[in-house]
Amino acid sequence: MPAIRHALSTKREDDFAQWYQEVISEAEMAEESGVRGCMVIKPWGYGIWERIQRLMDDRIKAAGVTNCYFPLFIPLSYFAKEAEHVEGFAKEMAVVTHHRLVGDGKGGLVPDPEAKLEEPLIVRPTSETVIGAAMARWVQSWRDLPLMVNQWANVVRWEMRTRMFLRTSEFLWQEGHTAHADRDDAMTETLRALEMYRDFSETELAMPVIAGEKPENERFPGAVATYSIEAMMQDGKALQAGTSHYLGTGFAEAAGIQYQDKEGTQQYAHTTSWGTSTRMVGGVIMTHGDDDGLRVPPMIAPHQIVILPMLRDNDEDEALLAYCEELRKALVTQFALNEPLRVLLDKRPGKATQKRWAWVKKGVPLILEIGGRDAAGGQVSMLRRDKLWNDAAKANFVAMSKEDFVARAAAEIEDIQTSLHAEAKAKLQANISQAASFEELASFFSEDKRYPGWVEVEWSRPTGEALEAVVQKLKAHKLTIRNTPLDAAPVAGNCVFTGDPAVERIYVARSY
Amino acid sequence: MPAIRHALSTKREDDFAQWYQEVISEAEMAEESGVRGCMVIKPWGYGIWERIQRLMDDRIKAAGVTNCYFPLFIPLSYFAKEAEHVEGFAKEMAVVTHHRLVGDGKGGLVPDPEAKLEEPLIVRPTSETVIGAAMARWVQSWRDLPLMVNQWANVVRWEMRTRMFLRTSEFLWQEGHTAHADRDDAMTETLRALEMYRDFSETELAMPVIAGEKPENERFPGAVATYSIEAMMQDGKALQAGTSHYLGTGFAEAAGIQYQDKEGTQQYAHTTSWGTSTRMVGGVIMTHGDDDGLRVPPMIAPHQIVILPMLRDNDEDEALLAYCEELRKALVTQFALNEPLRVLLDKRPGKATQKRWAWVKKGVPLILEIGGRDAAGGQVSMLRRDKLWNDAAKANFVAMSKEDFVARAAAEIEDIQTSLHAEAKAKLQANISQAASFEELASFFSEDKRYPGWVEVEWSRPTGEALEAVVQKLKAHKLTIRNTPLDAAPVAGNCVFTGDPAVERIYVARSY
Repeated sequence: MPAIRHALSTKREDDFAQWYQEVISEAEMAEESGVRGCMVIKPWGYGIWERIQRLMDDRIKAAGVTNCYFPLFIPLSYFAKEAEHVEGFAKEMAVVTHHRLVGDGKGGLVPDPEAKLEEPLIVRPTSETVIGAAMARWVQSWRDLPLMVNQWANVVRWEMRTRMFLRTSEFLWQEGHTAHADRDDAMTETLRALEMYRDFSETELAMPVIAGEKPENERFPGAVATYSIEAMMQDGKALQAGTSHYLGTGFAEAAGIQYQDKEGTQQYAHTTSWGTSTRMVGGVIMTHGDDDGLRVPPMIAPHQIVILPMLRDNDEDEALLAYCEELRKALVTQFALNEPLRVLLDKRPGKATQKRWAWVKKGVPLILEIGGRDAAGGQVSMLRRDKLWNDAAKANFVAMSKEDFVARAAAEIEDIQTSLHAEAKAKLQANISQAASFEELASFFSEDKRYPGWVEVEWSRPTGEALEAVVQKLKAHKLTIRNTPLDAAPVAGNCVFTGDPAVERIYVARSY
Repeated sequence: MPAIRHALSTKREDDFAQWYQEVISEAEMAEESGVRGCMVIKPWGYGIWERIQRLMDDRIKAAGVTNCYFPLFIPLSYFAKEAEHVEGFAKEMAVVTHHRLVGDGKGGLVPDPEAKLEEPLIVRPTSETVIGAAMARWVQSWRDLPLMVNQWANVVRWEMRTRMFLRTSEFLWQEGHTAHADRDDAMTETLRALEMYRDFSETELAMPVIAGEKPENERFPGAVATYSIEAMMQDGKALQAGTSHYLGTGFAEAAGIQYQDKEGTQQYAHTTSWGTSTRMVGGVIMTHGDDDGLRVPPMIAPHQIVILPMLRDNDEDEALLAYCEELRKALVTQFALNEPLRVLLDKRPGKATQKRWAWVKKGVPLILEIGGRDAAGGQVSMLRRDKLWNDAAKANFVAMSKEDFVARAAAEIEDIQTSLHAEAKAKLQANISQAASFEELASFFSEDKRYPGWVEVEWSRPTGEALEAVVQKLKAHKLTIRNTPLDAAPVAGNCVFTGDPAVERIYVARSY
């Protein structure tokens, strides 16, 4: 078989980190903004986020959660209160200290010393405190519960080492916050949100994940239990793609979220919070991308089909465009994955081949290239992004009549969604190993594997200092505990760390 | 006719400002957040904004504009550059100076002096500078033009006197930014956006507006021409509800947005920007609200129909709820205003009458109250929010069979949309007067009218100092020039300010 000339200059197996940056750049998803740690999300990257947002929002609303909007700024004193209670309180935050600029007398501008704020404001890193204060106002009686709100917003965490979509100082997310009458109801909601994220990842993102509970040392500060979904990237590292927290009554006590129960007694509410972010876009890239760029699962693709007329700047262009427009109109009446097909007729100037490869790198699921002869003969040439190369190492175009294509377009799109998921699922399963001892675990990761994947082990769920010892032991191998899967098989042996009888299984991996 | 007992304690005619606050509070749209100048947008207010956002976004995308996301923070130096060029440069902005908190040794937190930023960051008041920098990177050739992007984002302008939805330190908006090869193309886009806003206000918001050009003194700093839509609130004041700017090549020169034309020559692009914000929600309240609360136009109502079962906490509730659920299912298959009906079955505990008045104050277009006997007899009782009171000063319920209601529900919803627009349009037209001299103008506004409306006058379009004299003269009467309507009748006389021959008509009014 002749060698394929891939569209990217870096291959995944050669340098995964550089490959990732190249996909983002070549697919025109995002770029550095000139503002430290902040990115510009370009139309293709933002279009994918908009699809994620809309589909996730539909699920959130269907669960009876309503959207609200809370302030970007949080007074410093709110955090001071939290810091008292929470040991792991992160302090890397953007602090607003002035509300006016003034000329510096040398043609420049400086913060006006006369306009110093009495109390500094923090740009929200998360909204627990300000939403807790609102919930304290809104909740009076058991009739007000459950109270379930969600916010789509930008948040800021001052990050020293940033990577686009995965860790940026500013990012976009949704944060759900709910208050409940008792532990059971709150825990049910915590797990509902987790299951929503799991199913969303598998279905909409075609990204297989493991849903489970994080170990004590990785809990959200102040949480009673933290759950996550963990996806495996193609370099074998884990990506935490969403979290859901049961907060007990601790946050309600700090914020004063109290209700009168049916017996007339004042009770503290049990609260939860759960979130996903633009990080999921990074997960999609590292799950589905290949050496030709991104491959976008059809459910979240801004365009599912791009029609590329091979324009020649001559008299025949008009008939060709009319043919393509007719095709586009026929396609958008078709439904795939419960929505009308999203089809772009790309009429921009430029060479068809260049435009083809630009769309390949962007990962649009289906490309139709149509020349004058195709139009005259009622034909189309279809290129599936997930079946890009033929045996001759050429772009794997399949010719067929326009009618045939219209009839099978929806099925092709649905098949791409399914195929991407199946491919990723197979990779995940193939890259999970077992280890029966710490030595086995350590040697697995120290072997000369570039991308070793995850290891499943049994453990005794130590806490406190015993857990800390485990964490440090793993850290020496650059490893972390990802989570305790909810649907694991029963344990059979002893803890690989402590030797005590095991109580559950955990995944150990390198991670983002 | 007996006296109506309205749902609000303040009437519009008694104290419009207090009425406005009461609507926002009683309709549970928003509230003070505890953070100076920032509001919490509650589910009903945010639901209306989400509808506005989705419908406006559809229009923006249909125009070929793509969404992006740009950083929240803008380096101070970007503004310093702008300040050099722009006299009217506003300096009231939130300034980030530190990126970490640290304990103050007394149990509190303070900005860490070790974590002072080398260059302060500004929380974006608008994104011209940072988007201009991106456009300079993205535009190389005439093939890259027009470049049309839009962003949905939060922005911050430090306001001393705030009013919910109308003027808050943080608000939500969309900002469109486009670059074009020449003036004609940019001006066409400027006016396209203006017309989009005008038609959106009239159609989706049922809020009549006047589209026109702002006078020179009210141009966006640095713009060549600024256009606005102006709506008349029920107190006769004008509300600028959207703006569109033709920026010439000035911003392109400052940011370096250059392209090579077909002849190979480097040219500066011509740019535009246009925006609307959560302020529109304030406009909707003051256009459609009445002494019983808000009235939401069906196109932007989160729920168009609320079904209220009169639950009695007894055995009959189950049959009643089943009947209501059947009704809900029948209704959501119906289409009104090109979308499926949005129907809520409100099963929350509480007295039906209390719940009814809560929904009346929220302004849901149609309420259906259904008791056990209605359910048994296959009946419903319909209350249209725009026809709330009958001649006996009672809630104007109309009884009919369930089947009849399902058959006419869509027509009722569409009729409410039309009626609200017609009512507002009639008010606008009835409250525009003419004045042939400045004395007439001044006396019109000095008469003892609570809510005088707007006055149309002819003027000579003075510029520079002559315009400034007019502005000051009007200011003495608390008046401003709103805009020069695009579709005005020809002029016939002299300028009411200068006595020179008039060249166009303008609207003069008090304003928000």
